[in-house]
Amino acid sequence: MPVQTQIGLMTHEELRAELERHTAKYEQLKAEKLKLDLTRGKPAPEQLDLSTDLLSLPGDGDFRDADGTDCRNYGGLAGLPELRAIFGELLGIPVANLLAGGNASLEIMHDTIAFSLLHGTPDSPRPWSQEPVVKFLCPAPGYDRHFAITESYGVEMIAIPMRDDGPDMPKVIELVAADPQIKGMWCVPAYSNPTGAVYSESVARALVSMPAAAPDFRIFWDNAYAVHPLVAECTPALDVLGMAAEAGHPNRPLVFASTSKITFAGSGVSFFGGSEQNVAWYLQHLGKKTIGPDKVNQLRHLRFFKDAAGVRAHMDKHREILAPKFALVRSILEDRLGASKVASWTDPKGGYFVSLDVVDGTAKRVIELAKKAGIALTAAGSAFPYKQDPADRNIRLAPSFPSMDELAKAMDGVATCVLLAATEHALTKNQ
Amino acid sequence: MPVQTQIGLMTHEELRAELERHTAKYEQLKAEKLKLDLTRGKPAPEQLDLSTDLLSLPGDGDFRDADGTDCRNYGGLAGLPELRAIFGELLGIPVANLLAGGNASLEIMHDTIAFSLLHGTPDSPRPWSQEPVVKFLCPAPGYDRHFAITESYGVEMIAIPMRDDGPDMPKVIELVAADPQIKGMWCVPAYSNPTGAVYSESVARALVSMPAAAPDFRIFWDNAYAVHPLVAECTPALDVLGMAAEAGHPNRPLVFASTSKITFAGSGVSFFGGSEQNVAWYLQHLGKKTIGPDKVNQLRHLRFFKDAAGVRAHMDKHREILAPKFALVRSILEDRLGASKVASWTDPKGGYFVSLDVVDGTAKRVIELAKKAGIALTAAGSAFPYKQDPADRNIRLAPSFPSMDELAKAMDGVATCVLLAATEHALTKNQ
Repeated sequence: MPVQTQIGLMTHEELRAELERHTAKYEQLKAEKLKLDLTRGKPAPEQLDLSTDLLSLPGDGDFRDADGTDCRNYGGLAGLPELRAIFGELLGIPVANLLAGGNASLEIMHDTIAFSLLHGTPDSPRPWSQEPVVKFLCPAPGYDRHFAITESYGVEMIAIPMRDDGPDMPKVIELVAADPQIKGMWCVPAYSNPTGAVYSESVARALVSMPAAAPDFRIFWDNAYAVHPLVAECTPALDVLGMAAEAGHPNRPLVFASTSKITFAGSGVSFFGGSEQNVAWYLQHLGKKTIGPDKVNQLRHLRFFKDAAGVRAHMDKHREILAPKFALVRSILEDRLGASKVASWTDPKGGYFVSLDVVDGTAKRVIELAKKAGIALTAAGSAFPYKQDPADRNIRLAPSFPSMDELAKAMDGVATCVLLAATEHALTKNQ
Repeated sequence: MPVQTQIGLMTHEELRAELERHTAKYEQLKAEKLKLDLTRGKPAPEQLDLSTDLLSLPGDGDFRDADGTDCRNYGGLAGLPELRAIFGELLGIPVANLLAGGNASLEIMHDTIAFSLLHGTPDSPRPWSQEPVVKFLCPAPGYDRHFAITESYGVEMIAIPMRDDGPDMPKVIELVAADPQIKGMWCVPAYSNPTGAVYSESVARALVSMPAAAPDFRIFWDNAYAVHPLVAECTPALDVLGMAAEAGHPNRPLVFASTSKITFAGSGVSFFGGSEQNVAWYLQHLGKKTIGPDKVNQLRHLRFFKDAAGVRAHMDKHREILAPKFALVRSILEDRLGASKVASWTDPKGGYFVSLDVVDGTAKRVIELAKKAGIALTAAGSAFPYKQDPADRNIRLAPSFPSMDELAKAMDGVATCVLLAATEHALTKNQ
């Protein structure tokens, strides 16, 4: 391998040579006719195998919880108390403030927004749908499915730059204090999607304490990766509900979590946490659409985990599978792109993603090149509101699903595409 | 037992004696300190036992459907094709027009209304929430949870009398043709809740063919009891989607069903049927709130049923448990109330309820008397929009959950309360 120089410092002639080299490598890549997918944060089959016991749980004759409830029948809107206690311990939320639901926490997020639009929150002067405009702050890069919910309901989304310890707080504080139409904010506090950022305690305190022009301002606190470290020590769950109550804004945070990336991604249990008033509000509207959640599935999870330590031990096994994949991504990116300075990437301590920043103006081109070579990457701009990455810079990498072999091939291919696109781009500017 | 005479023909003196007799019997009833519940259409434990195998299905290593899909992972918004095919056969709906969802068809009904309010249907000039008023026709007596959804969203509910073959169609046709604010209508076409009425084919044809002033008029066709006969022959599912397409209104019906009263009431699978356009519309909005339904639970049900004949055979076992309970209700009502002419009741050929009509102005009193004697009945007026039974006449009886012994005690107690209330009422008028 020739020593790589920084593309930005190359002469036109050097760039032409570099282009030829990268083009040749890219043609080789295409000839491999790969069919690899780095688009979504899906658990790998080996991760799903960790929960095989769930396929035959709770087992014949086991259908009652500790209270004697027949989990097979209707009812129990709040979910099984024993399972709520386990996740309450992990999330730092009292069991009375935590509900267990169906298979998708995204659904609870959607529904709290739909209820706010149609009914208003307990603190709303009117339903949000009767406001002239509703705005949400969207730390970006962030989670595309969050932004898709607010976009679908015509909520105006304002991008907020993400830092290593959470969103750009001076900007957040300024906007929320000034604009009563800002009704909400998306947050992924631990091992954020896609950068891996972990909100600091001071950021969390600022979020729940800052003055808000809207009396019904809400923080959508999606703690999707609360127990999903890639290193030995897990970042402790921030007690956002306690902090908010202390700050005099008990109703501000709505907390979401699920077992989607703990047991089976499509067949897990979701959780909703909030103040007493928010929980009562949610249950009131939830009770119109369902008689209760799938309690047998909750019992199945209860039997499987047994206690909070059981969840932690289970997550250690996930980590053993996931950490080497993230190390592989890091290693290939360093090997192939380190010297050329055409990209930077995050080194997450948990979660499911690596956020890759390429030369400004080339992310779309990288993704297009990769696609033509049979490597599916998350669509350009996905991590930004309205799918608009203003710098055309960001690419979300999801290393969990492919095997180590596939991942190595895919990442090597991505690196080739990044280098080719950067060289093309430098040449255009150098003409 | 003295021969009973018709209370309405009694002299004041006879009524006094009758009151004394019924009061004594009622005091005996209270002394028994019963704790019985006839409020909800919950399957009995013996019915839930029929599906015990589900507690350990799909079983170790069984997680792929016929297409090879790993049911444990994310995705598959439309639900498992194999399970949709089984229920498509039972409901008379092509598999492409039928989706399989989570554990509650009520949730799909709620969500189709919420999506219509917030986005509008494919045929709506604007979202329903932007209309000055939205009205629904509510055949009554009907299902309280239907009415609770529309009430919660401020939909104006118009009661339509129920007949033996469906709602009062001349009234329906007149209203729907004239009022563009009538956007929807609740229907339970087979073994209706609570009267047991079965919609005739001609009623169904009229519903999908009649002119509607609203271009986006929708029939919410809740086929909750499609395969739930109490007699040997099940009423065939009406092809409401086919009829609607033929009549030039393919988007008018939205069909709902579930396995809640087939397998486990809280842990079943729901279904949504509609035209190609309605299915696409629903999936578009559903895709914002979930990545997919619990496919492992769908696979579990697929393994359990195997095919449509498996569902029918399973329902035969339910019928063996349920039919004697309904026969017992009928027999006690005839024995205790037949001669006195103070009540009439339905004789359903399927479903979960008996609708009992007592002397006008006494339903609340009967329910109050029963409550004091430890027999919980569905709240007065429950089967009517806004819980307003204009004649204070209707009581919904749910015989499924109690044991035969409990049911006999409860129904005997109800009869005592009906007679006491009727006598009190006659005396008031006779004073």
